[in-house]
Amino acid sequence: MNSKELTRLLQSLVDGQISIDDGVERLKQLPFEDLGVAQIDHHRELRQGVPEVVLGESKSLEQLKIILTAMAKQGGNILVTRLDGEKVTALCNQFPEAEYDVDARTLCLLQQKIEITGRGTVLVVCAGPSDIPVAREAVITARMLGNQVEELIDVGVAGIHRLLARGDQLQKATVIIVVAGMEGALPSVIGGLVATPVIAVPTSVGYGAAFGGIAALLGMLNSCASGVTVVNIDNGFGAAFAANRINRKG
Amino acid sequence: MNSKELTRLLQSLVDGQISIDDGVERLKQLPFEDLGVAQIDHHRELRQGVPEVVLGESKSLEQLKIILTAMAKQGGNILVTRLDGEKVTALCNQFPEAEYDVDARTLCLLQQKIEITGRGTVLVVCAGPSDIPVAREAVITARMLGNQVEELIDVGVAGIHRLLARGDQLQKATVIIVVAGMEGALPSVIGGLVATPVIAVPTSVGYGAAFGGIAALLGMLNSCASGVTVVNIDNGFGAAFAANRINRKG
Amino acid sequence: MNSKELTRLLQSLVDGQISIDDGVERLKQLPFEDLGVAQIDHHRELRQGVPEVVLGESKSLEQLKIILTAMAKQGGNILVTRLDGEKVTALCNQFPEAEYDVDARTLCLLQQKIEITGRGTVLVVCAGPSDIPVAREAVITARMLGNQVEELIDVGVAGIHRLLARGDQLQKATVIIVVAGMEGALPSVIGGLVATPVIAVPTSVGYGAAFGGIAALLGMLNSCASGVTVVNIDNGFGAAFAANRINRKG
Amino acid sequence: MNSKELTRLLQSLVDGQISIDDGVERLKQLPFEDLGVAQIDHHRELRQGVPEVVLGESKSLEQLKIILTAMAKQGGNILVTRLDGEKVTALCNQFPEAEYDVDARTLCLLQQKIEITGRGTVLVVCAGPSDIPVAREAVITARMLGNQVEELIDVGVAGIHRLLARGDQLQKATVIIVVAGMEGALPSVIGGLVATPVIAVPTSVGYGAAFGGIAALLGMLNSCASGVTVVNIDNGFGAAFAANRINRKG
Amino acid sequence: MNSKELTRLLQSLVDGQISIDDGVERLKQLPFEDLGVAQIDHHRELRQGVPEVVLGESKSLEQLKIILTAMAKQGGNILVTRLDGEKVTALCNQFPEAEYDVDARTLCLLQQKIEITGRGTVLVVCAGPSDIPVAREAVITARMLGNQVEELIDVGVAGIHRLLARGDQLQKATVIIVVAGMEGALPSVIGGLVATPVIAVPTSVGYGAAFGGIAALLGMLNSCASGVTVVNIDNGFGAAFAANRINRKG
Amino acid sequence: MNSKELTRLLQSLVDGQISIDDGVERLKQLPFEDLGVAQIDHHRELRQGVPEVVLGESKSLEQLKIILTAMAKQGGNILVTRLDGEKVTALCNQFPEAEYDVDARTLCLLQQKIEITGRGTVLVVCAGPSDIPVAREAVITARMLGNQVEELIDVGVAGIHRLLARGDQLQKATVIIVVAGMEGALPSVIGGLVATPVIAVPTSVGYGAAFGGIAALLGMLNSCASGVTVVNIDNGFGAAFAANRINRKG
Amino acid sequence: MNSKELTRLLQSLVDGQISIDDGVERLKQLPFEDLGVAQIDHHRELRQGVPEVVLGESKSLEQLKIILTAMAKQGGNILVTRLDGEKVTALCNQFPEAEYDVDARTLCLLQQKIEITGRGTVLVVCAGPSDIPVAREAVITARMLGNQVEELIDVGVAGIHRLLARGDQLQKATVIIVVAGMEGALPSVIGGLVATPVIAVPTSVGYGAAFGGIAALLGMLNSCASGVTVVNIDNGFGAAFAANRINRKG
Amino acid sequence: MNSKELTRLLQSLVDGQISIDDGVERLKQLPFEDLGVAQIDHHRELRQGVPEVVLGESKSLEQLKIILTAMAKQGGNILVTRLDGEKVTALCNQFPEAEYDVDARTLCLLQQKIEITGRGTVLVVCAGPSDIPVAREAVITARMLGNQVEELIDVGVAGIHRLLARGDQLQKATVIIVVAGMEGALPSVIGGLVATPVIAVPTSVGYGAAFGGIAALLGMLNSCASGVTVVNIDNGFGAAFAANRINRKG
Repeated sequence: MNSKELTRLLQSLVDGQISIDDGVERLKQLPFEDLGVAQIDHHRELRQGVPEVVLGESKSLEQLKIILTAMAKQGGNILVTRLDGEKVTALCNQFPEAEYDVDARTLCLLQQKIEITGRGTVLVVCAGPSDIPVAREAVITARMLGNQVEELIDVGVAGIHRLLARGDQLQKATVIIVVAGMEGALPSVIGGLVATPVIAVPTSVGYGAAFGGIAALLGMLNSCASGVTVVNIDNGFGAAFAANRINRKG
Repeated sequence: MNSKELTRLLQSLVDGQISIDDGVERLKQLPFEDLGVAQIDHHRELRQGVPEVVLGESKSLEQLKIILTAMAKQGGNILVTRLDGEKVTALCNQFPEAEYDVDARTLCLLQQKIEITGRGTVLVVCAGPSDIPVAREAVITARMLGNQVEELIDVGVAGIHRLLARGDQLQKATVIIVVAGMEGALPSVIGGLVATPVIAVPTSVGYGAAFGGIAALLGMLNSCASGVTVVNIDNGFGAAFAANRINRKG
Repeated sequence: MNSKELTRLLQSLVDGQISIDDGVERLKQLPFEDLGVAQIDHHRELRQGVPEVVLGESKSLEQLKIILTAMAKQGGNILVTRLDGEKVTALCNQFPEAEYDVDARTLCLLQQKIEITGRGTVLVVCAGPSDIPVAREAVITARMLGNQVEELIDVGVAGIHRLLARGDQLQKATVIIVVAGMEGALPSVIGGLVATPVIAVPTSVGYGAAFGGIAALLGMLNSCASGVTVVNIDNGFGAAFAANRINRKG
Repeated sequence: MNSKELTRLLQSLVDGQISIDDGVERLKQLPFEDLGVAQIDHHRELRQGVPEVVLGESKSLEQLKIILTAMAKQGGNILVTRLDGEKVTALCNQFPEAEYDVDARTLCLLQQKIEITGRGTVLVVCAGPSDIPVAREAVITARMLGNQVEELIDVGVAGIHRLLARGDQLQKATVIIVVAGMEGALPSVIGGLVATPVIAVPTSVGYGAAFGGIAALLGMLNSCASGVTVVNIDNGFGAAFAANRINRKG
Repeated sequence: MNSKELTRLLQSLVDGQISIDDGVERLKQLPFEDLGVAQIDHHRELRQGVPEVVLGESKSLEQLKIILTAMAKQGGNILVTRLDGEKVTALCNQFPEAEYDVDARTLCLLQQKIEITGRGTVLVVCAGPSDIPVAREAVITARMLGNQVEELIDVGVAGIHRLLARGDQLQKATVIIVVAGMEGALPSVIGGLVATPVIAVPTSVGYGAAFGGIAALLGMLNSCASGVTVVNIDNGFGAAFAANRINRKG
Repeated sequence: MNSKELTRLLQSLVDGQISIDDGVERLKQLPFEDLGVAQIDHHRELRQGVPEVVLGESKSLEQLKIILTAMAKQGGNILVTRLDGEKVTALCNQFPEAEYDVDARTLCLLQQKIEITGRGTVLVVCAGPSDIPVAREAVITARMLGNQVEELIDVGVAGIHRLLARGDQLQKATVIIVVAGMEGALPSVIGGLVATPVIAVPTSVGYGAAFGGIAALLGMLNSCASGVTVVNIDNGFGAAFAANRINRKG
Repeated sequence: MNSKELTRLLQSLVDGQISIDDGVERLKQLPFEDLGVAQIDHHRELRQGVPEVVLGESKSLEQLKIILTAMAKQGGNILVTRLDGEKVTALCNQFPEAEYDVDARTLCLLQQKIEITGRGTVLVVCAGPSDIPVAREAVITARMLGNQVEELIDVGVAGIHRLLARGDQLQKATVIIVVAGMEGALPSVIGGLVATPVIAVPTSVGYGAAFGGIAALLGMLNSCASGVTVVNIDNGFGAAFAANRINRKG
Repeated sequence: MNSKELTRLLQSLVDGQISIDDGVERLKQLPFEDLGVAQIDHHRELRQGVPEVVLGESKSLEQLKIILTAMAKQGGNILVTRLDGEKVTALCNQFPEAEYDVDARTLCLLQQKIEITGRGTVLVVCAGPSDIPVAREAVITARMLGNQVEELIDVGVAGIHRLLARGDQLQKATVIIVVAGMEGALPSVIGGLVATPVIAVPTSVGYGAAFGGIAALLGMLNSCASGVTVVNIDNGFGAAFAANRINRKG
């Protein structure tokens, strides 16, 4: 709400088109609406197909049931991340149409067709088989957010020819998410091959001096390929969310 | 494919058993030149106005003179980063048309007009006055790479109303680079306000438990705003390069 | 006991008003009583309603039963912190009037009405739902220590408008405890909004580079809001104890 | 501005007591003024005697001259922290009435008598002679902020009887700032002796495994005395600011 | 070389302007097959007796069954590392001829006689009894890779005479793998005794400030014996692989 | 064996008093016996009452049974450290005369009366109740090694008067072992009170920024009391062993 | 002062043998004198030849001159540690009889003959030439404290035979201080060779992953030789002080 | 000296071929000579052309002059590492025939022709221009030790095609030393390309989260290419020494 709109509002008040009570009510929204920042929340409700996201890890089964039931009523899509153990069975029983991905540990409840809102393709590349769970979380999140997604699996730098053979696929993507544990070198190689945005996701794969992903994280932060950005360890969800920020139209 | 097989392939070509087109197709698979990966370098030479980048820090004055002289002859633009001390005076004497930015520690030699190749605006936001040098490096780099750049200075989270008053500027940017030291909280606030890509740059500003930027780095990696990505400490250059990857057309 | 009182004591000894044995007995207390430091212990017994505090975590069920039985006989209030597992059921059976809070993991045995001894209100603010357990420990501890307590839940910096809407509540508190995990940015924002004491509690909420609360701890130690103080990770009890030091009359 | 006031404002608009333009102007202030958070800034200007604070470390002499000249014109008191080197001489020449403290590295420009606004005494205790600079920064800051301040020097835990002899002084303070390097044990001892707020300041004093203050910082965060709070390493200014938050009336 | 140039090259071949040999030579330069880098994979299939290696840790029983069944059909030897729990029983049932080593946590399926391809002996030395599992992994891996292997157990530096008594055995080895936890001092002593390659393997043996092998790792990286190299913590497999690189003929 | 003895040995060989084979046999012992370093082992067997020590943690029940049975036959005393779980029951069944201490996690098999070989008393001081297990390990080890041992429990620095009241006991000890977790401040206070050797043992007691004992370890290494030495985290055994080195006669 | 003495004092007061004022005066000393802890200070003044110790590093030349002049007047010996730069020349001019050791960075002012008060010999062993400064600080401190001291230089573990050749010297010492940087392995070897107390001093010698002495420190804390104790990095003074605690008579 | 030789020695003593004194003398050497470990030292003196190595960094100019003069007299070759500043000029004046390499910071004094004793070629590969100093140290050390050395410069993973184009050179080397800073990814790529030993040298090149080489070090320790070994940060000398251990004949 800019000055013009505010003037118009006050004018209609003076003109008696709206009551003082209505005016108070509308103006009380100001701190939120006028900041020019809170639109996202409204957009969400308006743009069909965008999922509600629930972090499953830190919530009890009871809490999840309440939250999901309430959300499901609104008719939108729902993505639960980091869900495992017995909570999965219970929730799948209650929501039989929901799909659980055992690698990604995600539960997707699709009540609407996902509308593709991305400009191009999000490519999720993954260094080794142990990195697949994090890569899958990225793939599913990016899809739920309305992106065209492709996967490229097991192309670690110790067998560089396997990666190089997929040069076309790398070149065609709009955003590339690179998931790697151990020394986390893959984003450097890919960052040197393409001019598109590269989001690096360190994984906690490895042992000893891998320090639960610190080695990969540091490797990626120090990438010799310019302009590689990094998210938190094992944060496939965050990488997909960042890719969505980049890939969305407008 | 070994020499023998290659010989056989060429023989069958000479023998007319396969067409030249088929031969080209098969040989194109030889994964390298055909990987479509080395083009970037060529593109660089072709696309005028894109700068050569030289890291000034680890090079001697002699080395810099040789490199810059050679580069300057090719007629393109040159960006030297992390340049300071007596090397500045010497190089400014030799290249009087070059511009040195004392905050950013960059030297820009413009021999061609920079062509704006970005889709929208790169906004560089900076938490406190001490973060300005890193922010300036990002601003200058992004400009040299062909982007429209805006700056928003000294809007740290301890005076949150100053930031909120600039909601419009935040909403209009295509990519936002957020530079902050100390606790590195600014990207979280901004990431919650906008839907556009947010690249966080931790700075080494602070003392004691700031640990030369580690506090800010960890804060940004753990941002509670989804989809914030991070670059290395004080890496204004890298953030701008990442922003350019996002902002470039096509 | 200062020089004057000591003179008076010796005088009454010389005057025969007290025996040498009594004198010895009183003077043997000196190293403790005269230090002017040990009064707290006596105050505790005198001031009714102040709880005994037991750290439940490192004690066996047997030890806890013995300690609590002994304490309960003295008629005061008792607060057991960090209590969980099967110890809860056993103790709740033995002390059916005790109240267990499953979030805070505290057991409160109230044998007397808590007397409000604080000057004003302790406000406990909490960034995200996962921080609630630590916040609850602070709330319950502060109440047991005789403070008026209010709670403000789920006002993280990624949705800054929710916090700003509660400006009044922030302004009216006498002490504010701010509980936050991940990047720990909330105390900086609140510290910039109010002039009252702000005690920051980092939580171990998060994963990867959150390093079990180190990211939040460092963030808070480096807060750009001046005069924010910090306690140990997940130390809701300590924060409430510090708030009580600040809020107590006198 | 609450609902009642807003209603009154709109009523006076409808009543024609204020023009639409005036209404727009007043309502445009809302995001700042109505948040109930930005008053501090205004209070500052109103309450005479409260100093402007400038961090000297990261500013050039030129910047400092401009800032101080501008501030000095407003007639209030000014505190420059972390100032040293040749900047001291230059500024002392320009502001001959300013006082520089070589230990604290502070420059104080007093243009008004400091009004004591604190409820009681801030006591700054210091473990060893090497901790004095940080303690002095706390002392001077607390004084400039309007507090009665006392100092207690060189009472480290390896000579515990020196500390115990000062029990009275400890008991009488309203807030105690404890400055210590090396193992940082002093706040634990003092926290066990008094019921008042204790703010611990780790210093970077020590060598080897002191790790520039980390040992003291960790010691203080893990204090076995309940309710000790901690600020950043060497942050005497921050400790005084926190003490001022606690000590201020109202 | 792009499609056009390739077409031209083939045309000139068809036209007889260049000979087939010349064509082969030029095409061999197409950097890939000609990189001389992918041969390893082929060699593997050709050289009988070289094992396939499977990391057992991160794979499910189902995955392992599929992989091992497929590999076993090819008739070569198979080494599964880091295998334990119930997966062992299941796999031993399915492959009754496989041998499981409970210390090394390796499963070896020998379908061919191992051909000794090493130049000399790989000696695996082990500091204490707790280091044996890692040493055994090295021993078994080195044997499976075709090396003559000897073991020397429990010769830690706190009983230096036991080590010195085995000087002959140390001198005769071609490569020495030294496995040690705690302070990791053994490689320094051995590195000073022999002129042969010494590969140090830190183990996670120890507690407290051993930090899961960091103490040993740092000790080995800082060895005062020149030319000691180090692998990751607990990486017996990697050390044996490195020894094999050194020991292989050719 | 010095030159004189060696001359005598060779003389007796030349004189035919011993055969060449005997000479070879005796001289082959040289590297061990003549180093003047390996006597400890022999002393052990000679000095009755000195225990064999077995680290229980990393050994299986089978291994422990074999080792203890063999050792028990030699008739000496045996100390098993870090023993817990079901291994305790099994071993106590097999060695019914052995005593298990549930706090210290030690198993003592006394087959001979312990001979007191220490010069004076080893005093084990312990900061809080949670530090008792480590203190008990030190107490039992020191006793098994032949020292007079006293204990002083729960005298942490937050209640300093309790410690000061025990000044006599501190002054009379020959060696003091101080066991403390959290901030590890107790050794500094005691080191300032006495002139005797003080061995500090950090414990892993605490949470959050205690980092499993690192805070206490750093605190102790940086003790402001001169001449305090430190052992590894939770290493009650090592502290007692060091105390025994100091306290032994000769 | 125990109960008996206190009774006697009060009796003499009642008997009129001492005045009330005298009684007050004597009893006011109680908190210090009666703690049974402060004797050290008095002993110091009484026992001639024990040096005053001044840490030179953190004091200005002015401060040092004042302190040393005051101390020198009392006629005892003075040891200044960590003294260098221009302060050395100035102090040597003022105290021409003082001896400065450039390696140890110590200044010794001997005004009395040092009385040997130690029971036996303190042996200072040093791994490499770069560790000599720290070793020298230990040697000089131990001598100033009244101990017989021997040195053993450059016997690192990478040339183990040089150490073993000095077995006799190791066996004869009463306390051994072992100074080592890099991997810090020497104390483990020596601790395994002797039954006497071994104090390990890590030095900051090394580069890269030596991390300024952390590698050596961790190595020593994890020594596989039982009963090795450790002091802070580069703390030769502290090691000597600890050795003096052990070596002093009675 | 084995049993056979010992028997022969004693026999010749009994036979009167050598005197008892001679026997004593020879047997006194035993601890050194008979350990079968100390031969290296003797070999050194025997094998001409092997250099003496002096670490220049921690030695004063005076010390270096004395050491080098003494060594030079023996007529062998001398390698001084980590030498810089004014020491270079002074030593080059004194030893005008010595060659100083400003990148490697090495001084080589060749008094004999270096005899090539290596089996094959040591290839030193270097990721970026900033890594050259460390690579040069490795090159010069390896040459001085008698190896054929080749260099491959500036083939970082962000431009992977440059590396792949040099496949032949990689394949032909006997040992490959890979020097890289930043993320340290190059050894993983090369380790996947070749079957020869790969020694990784992390450099301190980089800033921020490079942490002086820790990022590269961790990356290399976690290399996904099996059998890559690692030396300390910036330790070009150590890598060359390790390569020499591998490459030497015999």
